[in-house]
Amino acid sequence: MKTVYITRRETFNAAHKLWNDNWTDEKNEEVFGRCSNHNWHGHNFTLYVTVKGAPHPDTGFVINLKDLSEIIKDEIIEQLDHKNLNLDVPFLKGVLASTENVIIAIWDRLREPVSKAGGELVKLKLVETENNYVEYYGGREPF
Amino acid sequence: MKTVYITRRETFNAAHKLWNDNWTDEKNEEVFGRCSNHNWHGHNFTLYVTVKGAPHPDTGFVINLKDLSEIIKDEIIEQLDHKNLNLDVPFLKGVLASTENVIIAIWDRLREPVSKAGGELVKLKLVETENNYVEYYGGREPF
Amino acid sequence: MKTVYITRRETFNAAHKLWNDNWTDEKNEEVFGRCSNHNWHGHNFTLYVTVKGAPHPDTGFVINLKDLSEIIKDEIIEQLDHKNLNLDVPFLKGVLASTENVIIAIWDRLREPVSKAGGELVKLKLVETENNYVEYYGGREPF
Amino acid sequence: MKTVYITRRETFNAAHKLWNDNWTDEKNEEVFGRCSNHNWHGHNFTLYVTVKGAPHPDTGFVINLKDLSEIIKDEIIEQLDHKNLNLDVPFLKGVLASTENVIIAIWDRLREPVSKAGGELVKLKLVETENNYVEYYGGREPF
Amino acid sequence: MKTVYITRRETFNAAHKLWNDNWTDEKNEEVFGRCSNHNWHGHNFTLYVTVKGAPHPDTGFVINLKDLSEIIKDEIIEQLDHKNLNLDVPFLKGVLASTENVIIAIWDRLREPVSKAGGELVKLKLVETENNYVEYYGGREPF
Amino acid sequence: MKTVYITRRETFNAAHKLWNDNWTDEKNEEVFGRCSNHNWHGHNFTLYVTVKGAPHPDTGFVINLKDLSEIIKDEIIEQLDHKNLNLDVPFLKGVLASTENVIIAIWDRLREPVSKAGGELVKLKLVETENNYVEYYGGREPF
Repeated sequence: MKTVYITRRETFNAAHKLWNDNWTDEKNEEVFGRCSNHNWHGHNFTLYVTVKGAPHPDTGFVINLKDLSEIIKDEIIEQLDHKNLNLDVPFLKGVLASTENVIIAIWDRLREPVSKAGGELVKLKLVETENNYVEYYGGREPF
Repeated sequence: MKTVYITRRETFNAAHKLWNDNWTDEKNEEVFGRCSNHNWHGHNFTLYVTVKGAPHPDTGFVINLKDLSEIIKDEIIEQLDHKNLNLDVPFLKGVLASTENVIIAIWDRLREPVSKAGGELVKLKLVETENNYVEYYGGREPF
Repeated sequence: MKTVYITRRETFNAAHKLWNDNWTDEKNEEVFGRCSNHNWHGHNFTLYVTVKGAPHPDTGFVINLKDLSEIIKDEIIEQLDHKNLNLDVPFLKGVLASTENVIIAIWDRLREPVSKAGGELVKLKLVETENNYVEYYGGREPF
Repeated sequence: MKTVYITRRETFNAAHKLWNDNWTDEKNEEVFGRCSNHNWHGHNFTLYVTVKGAPHPDTGFVINLKDLSEIIKDEIIEQLDHKNLNLDVPFLKGVLASTENVIIAIWDRLREPVSKAGGELVKLKLVETENNYVEYYGGREPF
Repeated sequence: MKTVYITRRETFNAAHKLWNDNWTDEKNEEVFGRCSNHNWHGHNFTLYVTVKGAPHPDTGFVINLKDLSEIIKDEIIEQLDHKNLNLDVPFLKGVLASTENVIIAIWDRLREPVSKAGGELVKLKLVETENNYVEYYGGREPF
Repeated sequence: MKTVYITRRETFNAAHKLWNDNWTDEKNEEVFGRCSNHNWHGHNFTLYVTVKGAPHPDTGFVINLKDLSEIIKDEIIEQLDHKNLNLDVPFLKGVLASTENVIIAIWDRLREPVSKAGGELVKLKLVETENNYVEYYGGREPF
């Protein structure tokens, strides 16, 4: 089967801080450094969503990118854009807002709607700055 | 064995439209939206070609990038650059010109010449816009 | 006065060809090369629109970027995106579709609506490929 | 005189919101939209600092970029990086934190130290997202 | 287990040439072309270092990026930045300085320190120009 | 007159060092830091060449970009690409190879051939790394 991987990019701008409620201020600053700033800091996040499948003979599409884009916007961008990841996002309640934890939460929220739209979610990439990003394959380890 | 993956980037600018000849105009517009515009639209496509192998002891090369670049230019860029993907390209005749279908056709055209030059083609990436791209591993599914 | 320059970026994907109707096919190919391909080619165009002014004391804005973005989308993107610049665009009728001529036509169409929204249009930049772009200051020559 | 313009890029990640204290919540949301979110949002800001002058015969330098980088880091990055622009920055106290107002405040803070280091500050560029940026020439209007 | 892949980017600028001491000048130029220039040439290299693991419950971190960045700077950037890869780098002595060979040498130098810091190095990417890069998975072949 | 500014991008990879022959090694290292490394370092340089003029009625061109590209390749890229800026380039003999001095030398070499091809050279931009670049207007000071 001629499996193709297709990726859609979306962006959101958000505030967050790295903070462990069980720790003192000093411990938080020691571990998280400037990222623990009480009054928050923020980023332009870029999210890449990858779906795999064989192109449909009628459309040449693995999935209609318009549908995929709408799912990402409804489920993720609408929830995270111009928000505070620690305070404003129901599906991140209680989650320490590291990029690692955020990408797992995004996966858990996207997998089913993408599946209902006929796609198989296989990879996410979340870019926080030009110097760091995380990738998630639903827990699988291709390498 | 110390297998390294090496990638060469090339670009081409082309026109295309998404269109299924078996469908009415209305159906085409319903499914493909603005991409079905009768009079075409176009993109700056970027193609990444990845070859794997162990570096040769005499050259430190998996493959000579000059050779790889020439193959890509002869087989792909010369055929697609400043062309209409639906009308002008013999090896895309009868192919619905979605990026998914185009990347498969590029693979089928590149695999053998790359192999003859001593390289093993393992991945293609074709970027259509800053918001979407496709990847192809010859049908294999690494994840 | 503390004049600040603010720029909004928008993108559109379009087909075009470089073609002079008064010339033979040979002459067109001689001058325009691959850009004269009968069946068109295309690009991902990026448009930067710059407005200058003093930030308003109540908003800190030279112009509300939401308003500026809407003007650009209504007047330009809606007209050019997924279109053929030679065939589909009323305000480019009879214009040889070089990037130089297109940027002048965009200026003529944007200047008044931007002015009505309280902004002074001072510069456009239109990127055709990673290797070439044009800039236009309404005919003025700052350097 | 062979005047050359030299530019140094630095980055900072910060939280902010657009908010006018004299307005109701409704008015703030109406004008600033999502940017007025109570709990802040944030960006990866990129700052370009341009200095002009003739290259010194002994060094070929308009200004030593190491010196320029240190000034920018001491005066700006140290103050803004991983901070809340509305709450944490003494030199932005009372300033509505639009990019327009922030770039003016950065200019006022950088001009003198750059001058003391033998450079003439002539332009700043502050990029907030891939879709918008501001430029400031100290109030001058080159075009 | 919720394995996440995290990547840190660092850069270095270096000179090198492609040269096989066992060959004549003519043979070197025939195989390596302009890259064999006696007096060297150079690049802005970009290195991406990927580590995988489950986010720690206390920090949300696969690995503290500050630690990872320090390891990369100590072991690699400090050794390669503003250096001649053929002449100045002890751990590249006797290595033909192709990007393929350099990425393998970087892996061999990074694997243990990253492991001691609690991370599992799984991928390197080394970008030499906008048109070519290599990737290395420690010899493993995920595809 | 509807003056448009058109820019062509070209790239070259070169080695250099910052070094003043009249100074001791210590003085060179004190002023130029790592850039004074005896055995050179290098960069991927990106050169932007801007020409202004009114679009010609027959072609819509300020200048034919194919011609401009050929001039830049003949006069500059062929001379600098995969070269040592301190040792290999006749027109840089005796020039301290700072980016400031290099951009002036490129201007002096390009101005006349561009003029003969019917264009007016008005600006150069030379990018050395993602963090620094220089611009030159032939000595003029637009701001």
